[in-house]
Amino acid sequence: MSATEGSLLVVSAHAGDFVWRAGGAIALAAQRGLRAVVVCLSYGERGESARAWREGHSLEEIKAIREDEAKKAASSLGAEIRFLDAGDYPLVESPELVDRLVRVYRELSPSVVLTHALADPYNGDHPAAARMALQARVLAQAIGYDAPGEPLGAPPVFCFEPHQPEQCDFKPDVLLDITEAFDRKREAMECLPAQRHMWDYYTDLARRRGVQLKRNAGPNLGLPHDTMAEAYVRLYPQVTAHLA
Amino acid sequence: MSATEGSLLVVSAHAGDFVWRAGGAIALAAQRGLRAVVVCLSYGERGESARAWREGHSLEEIKAIREDEAKKAASSLGAEIRFLDAGDYPLVESPELVDRLVRVYRELSPSVVLTHALADPYNGDHPAAARMALQARVLAQAIGYDAPGEPLGAPPVFCFEPHQPEQCDFKPDVLLDITEAFDRKREAMECLPAQRHMWDYYTDLARRRGVQLKRNAGPNLGLPHDTMAEAYVRLYPQVTAHLA
Amino acid sequence: MSATEGSLLVVSAHAGDFVWRAGGAIALAAQRGLRAVVVCLSYGERGESARAWREGHSLEEIKAIREDEAKKAASSLGAEIRFLDAGDYPLVESPELVDRLVRVYRELSPSVVLTHALADPYNGDHPAAARMALQARVLAQAIGYDAPGEPLGAPPVFCFEPHQPEQCDFKPDVLLDITEAFDRKREAMECLPAQRHMWDYYTDLARRRGVQLKRNAGPNLGLPHDTMAEAYVRLYPQVTAHLA
Amino acid sequence: MSATEGSLLVVSAHAGDFVWRAGGAIALAAQRGLRAVVVCLSYGERGESARAWREGHSLEEIKAIREDEAKKAASSLGAEIRFLDAGDYPLVESPELVDRLVRVYRELSPSVVLTHALADPYNGDHPAAARMALQARVLAQAIGYDAPGEPLGAPPVFCFEPHQPEQCDFKPDVLLDITEAFDRKREAMECLPAQRHMWDYYTDLARRRGVQLKRNAGPNLGLPHDTMAEAYVRLYPQVTAHLA
Amino acid sequence: MSATEGSLLVVSAHAGDFVWRAGGAIALAAQRGLRAVVVCLSYGERGESARAWREGHSLEEIKAIREDEAKKAASSLGAEIRFLDAGDYPLVESPELVDRLVRVYRELSPSVVLTHALADPYNGDHPAAARMALQARVLAQAIGYDAPGEPLGAPPVFCFEPHQPEQCDFKPDVLLDITEAFDRKREAMECLPAQRHMWDYYTDLARRRGVQLKRNAGPNLGLPHDTMAEAYVRLYPQVTAHLA
Amino acid sequence: MSATEGSLLVVSAHAGDFVWRAGGAIALAAQRGLRAVVVCLSYGERGESARAWREGHSLEEIKAIREDEAKKAASSLGAEIRFLDAGDYPLVESPELVDRLVRVYRELSPSVVLTHALADPYNGDHPAAARMALQARVLAQAIGYDAPGEPLGAPPVFCFEPHQPEQCDFKPDVLLDITEAFDRKREAMECLPAQRHMWDYYTDLARRRGVQLKRNAGPNLGLPHDTMAEAYVRLYPQVTAHLA
Repeated sequence: MSATEGSLLVVSAHAGDFVWRAGGAIALAAQRGLRAVVVCLSYGERGESARAWREGHSLEEIKAIREDEAKKAASSLGAEIRFLDAGDYPLVESPELVDRLVRVYRELSPSVVLTHALADPYNGDHPAAARMALQARVLAQAIGYDAPGEPLGAPPVFCFEPHQPEQCDFKPDVLLDITEAFDRKREAMECLPAQRHMWDYYTDLARRRGVQLKRNAGPNLGLPHDTMAEAYVRLYPQVTAHLA
Repeated sequence: MSATEGSLLVVSAHAGDFVWRAGGAIALAAQRGLRAVVVCLSYGERGESARAWREGHSLEEIKAIREDEAKKAASSLGAEIRFLDAGDYPLVESPELVDRLVRVYRELSPSVVLTHALADPYNGDHPAAARMALQARVLAQAIGYDAPGEPLGAPPVFCFEPHQPEQCDFKPDVLLDITEAFDRKREAMECLPAQRHMWDYYTDLARRRGVQLKRNAGPNLGLPHDTMAEAYVRLYPQVTAHLA
Repeated sequence: MSATEGSLLVVSAHAGDFVWRAGGAIALAAQRGLRAVVVCLSYGERGESARAWREGHSLEEIKAIREDEAKKAASSLGAEIRFLDAGDYPLVESPELVDRLVRVYRELSPSVVLTHALADPYNGDHPAAARMALQARVLAQAIGYDAPGEPLGAPPVFCFEPHQPEQCDFKPDVLLDITEAFDRKREAMECLPAQRHMWDYYTDLARRRGVQLKRNAGPNLGLPHDTMAEAYVRLYPQVTAHLA
Repeated sequence: MSATEGSLLVVSAHAGDFVWRAGGAIALAAQRGLRAVVVCLSYGERGESARAWREGHSLEEIKAIREDEAKKAASSLGAEIRFLDAGDYPLVESPELVDRLVRVYRELSPSVVLTHALADPYNGDHPAAARMALQARVLAQAIGYDAPGEPLGAPPVFCFEPHQPEQCDFKPDVLLDITEAFDRKREAMECLPAQRHMWDYYTDLARRRGVQLKRNAGPNLGLPHDTMAEAYVRLYPQVTAHLA
Repeated sequence: MSATEGSLLVVSAHAGDFVWRAGGAIALAAQRGLRAVVVCLSYGERGESARAWREGHSLEEIKAIREDEAKKAASSLGAEIRFLDAGDYPLVESPELVDRLVRVYRELSPSVVLTHALADPYNGDHPAAARMALQARVLAQAIGYDAPGEPLGAPPVFCFEPHQPEQCDFKPDVLLDITEAFDRKREAMECLPAQRHMWDYYTDLARRRGVQLKRNAGPNLGLPHDTMAEAYVRLYPQVTAHLA
Repeated sequence: MSATEGSLLVVSAHAGDFVWRAGGAIALAAQRGLRAVVVCLSYGERGESARAWREGHSLEEIKAIREDEAKKAASSLGAEIRFLDAGDYPLVESPELVDRLVRVYRELSPSVVLTHALADPYNGDHPAAARMALQARVLAQAIGYDAPGEPLGAPPVFCFEPHQPEQCDFKPDVLLDITEAFDRKREAMECLPAQRHMWDYYTDLARRRGVQLKRNAGPNLGLPHDTMAEAYVRLYPQVTAHLA
């Protein structure tokens, strides 16, 4: 349970998701010396690029724009990024795509995994990505699964926050203090100019989750007025050596 | 979030509950230097003393026996113990009893709270104790509540495991490694001779939860074959500075 | 698990509930030789006697009317009936009323218990009756509870169907074939002339539940076209010697 | 289902709740010609007046301050306001208090009811208020309940949004467009100077709910950029003459 | 939110479902001037045509019979009808079939959508149809999805009632008054002679839901004795300009 | 509902599952004269044969070992066994595999069906097997489904216990007394030498479930001290002629 080693794997349906929803966690992990790797299953080229379509870009141009922006955002956060270009709207689940994720797990042996929530009535790609991330994690644990590398342990998995959390049955059970990483999250958000209206929206959300964090912290004297936070749902029981 | 200070408060419906269900957590906390205080709302004199009744003891004798045993068990675990003698079967909720708990919170300012789960169709005293423990915690936070001491922060609350967990909708989200404290837990259990059949039952349970802990731990190389564990449900979101 | 002995206890909030909701089960049990006892916590004098109020009757007159009708209905079903006259709208929960129920449990040592569902947003008396029936059952099990008789075993509990089942989260898990007892249920319903509109309503319901019963029965060749049924929810796990 | 007559009843645990959580709905109703009546069960004198306690005010002074502020806020919204002064932290449920609410229902015969959500692990007064509001509504429907006035119909009930919605299992199923009433809501919030930090917090929330409203509206061309909204949970099925 | 324009889209797994479950809503919409379009994914040729199979018809004959009956029923209700002939028992989900639905959404731009509930342990085709209807609705909203027409808004979706509602976790939150359209629903049901036993079954159901509608309506003076209703579950939050 | 005829069908994802989870039920059924048939969808060759892989066996060798062990275990229990060799980790759902199961249903016309629970975040093959077992059961009921044999009735389905029951939302509602069959279950477990550590684990579990069975049995005088049990979840409502 030492935090100075290991790696963080983020499985994201579209090229921008990891920024809005988990940018703080990624920046914090990188800052603490973990290797952080973001895997984008698609570029979000059809479902999350409305402005580019309205501007008349072609599919390939849009992918290139999204890839470029996502690379800059990942860099701001201190993370590597990979693109599997599996298509979006819909992101189709397949054994082949799951196998590619198994190989990533085997290669990285992540100590922590982040992905989408398992329900999202507004965007089917999100739960599809989560289901594949979870299935691949289990398959990578089996010695008999035919892929390079050692069988995986059982890294904890955290779901990051969807856009309409209540409608996705997203009940946060972890509030992560991202105050000291927020500047880098904001910088990463600003790498995505087509979604400028989201910058303030997710800054407000971080502040709101920060208020909630303080209401759930024991003696909150040490917490600054403008504590910023991200909300997560943990999918497997926490393993710990003491209760806190 | 430092673990070397603070205190642990355990609110237990009957005199024996804290041993079977949370003995490991208590022993671990005491070992780490926390002040651990167990509050028994009743002695379990009517509902959990079948053998003594069959042996023909009077109500007062049974209370005395239970108090004596519980004191020994608490001592084995390194904990203080208090008895509110509020009666059991049923444990009746009242503003007065809640007020006594508020005063305990204000006095101890616990950093962690343990109590029963909120549902138990086999024993109504358990959720009654939990409801009062939770209500008192909220009241103790209000500066306007008329009781000595400073307003409480928001210490995390963990529910310990009921006897038939699935029937109580108890889905563990924390698995606590109690391997190094298990000897003391066993010693404390053996302070309760009337429930000798429970000694092995709860030893088996600790082993079972230990197996599950290993299945949920990342790289489990460091964990011993006979890892022992206790299961808990966390009632409020975890506040943390990094995901693990 | 022999069915030729034991008794059936029905805990009903108001004087008419047992007829509409459990008349078939009661008639079947009586027919099989079980002693069937209905305990009405109130007469339903305020909340379920609209016609009598509109006709200008006094409170005492209404109670007397309801008692008389309920006695006739119980008699049609082959059941004894008792009235605790605890008041309705609201039926107030109290330790005293629970204690009276404990004494009934100790006296009868029922092999099966029927009561209301635990949720009903249209009628708070129903879940109040259920909570008291359940609490009393647990208390009666404790040797230390101060009431005459032997400690109770753990008789199964079935909730009968509320008026708007889905709104009460009532998901039937037992469908009881009452075809051969339906005539007596109809006869009992007709003992309640003030609620004449309910006669057909609950006849239709029995037919509807009968259709569902047939859809859930294995080889349904033997079931008659007009199978009649009542729906129940079982509150504790079924204990059995074989799966069927 | 005509909207030009009827009245709106708001049952609020503390003197400020109705402003933050339902100010928009109240202002809209008043604007449409409904009589809007807010019933505050307590002043929030112990649990929601931290600043006044720190400034050294007495209990009676605090109640007077809260009453004055709440009256001003209600006036800004176009609503009447009543104070039952039942005490807070804890707000104790009692048949007497429920009876007072029954009499309000019978007097006003509201066409719509607003109150708190049924769960709030951060504040037990809120669900206590909701339970009493709901119980009183059912009792007021019974012709046999001894209170002046005609039996109540079955007005729809909406729960307004708690401070940490996900932790309260609050899944909005109604999004109310309050854009045109927001100025009056802001004005009402500013009547509560002790909670100045909430002004922006709830303005942000209205904006966030407004964004969600637009994502759930059919053709959203007509909706302004800065649509403001409040979120509600409907407790009983909607009755309607057409689906929309 | 004007009701005088727009269209109603019904996505039905089998050729008869829309009649039993949503005939009232369809007739009401048509009567109000909406274009109503029913899309049958299959004819229900294998799973819902037991009598025709027993009579020895071939698969193609059965499809023709079902198509003919469904056309007559749709006509009675005032609706258009289309058949995608995708096969039943099982109805297999595929990107191609979803794409066909996307094109229907883009063509019609429906203002309201009706489909099956998301769970049905008795008939897997029903939730499969619902999942495809919902996925297609989301895809049709994306400007980047390659299909003719303008991106869709976010029309509300209502699930109609399955045969065993509680087993499908179907908790109605909308009760639609279909009294004035019931004659046409009955007429449409009578277009399906092979399921004659269902005519009365669904007439009884409409009456039962009508009784419940009256219990959930405010002042129910205006509602006729034989109010008929259909029950629905709304999948996305209601967007409204006032609470009622 | 006679128990002296009929057959038991067990659908198991991997070759060993039926032993640990349902061995007692199988042995009891065989003992009562039912034909018991186990269908293993895969050998568990990749996901549940870690020791064989570490010993260097090839895939084909591992399948052969697993087949041999499973045959011996089935024989100990008195059951037939079949292997569909559909592959594991992942067990891929397909219409072809479901069709093979439909044919098994049609051939056997089982009176009881056992399979996995519908959720298991630790092993995706288990719910995949359950979904196919359930889908095939529904398809086999349709006269129009093209497979030999008569349409199936609606046999009850029981889910057997997963390894971490709470994490799989497995809330037992049937406790099966397997005391008299436990010797054969132990013998069957010992046919699986590679999983020696499971022998005691599942013996302990049977004892634990036995303790719970006694706590849920009415008058438990007749039950032996070492009652052994298995836990199940029933998926469809129980159909019965009397409540017990």
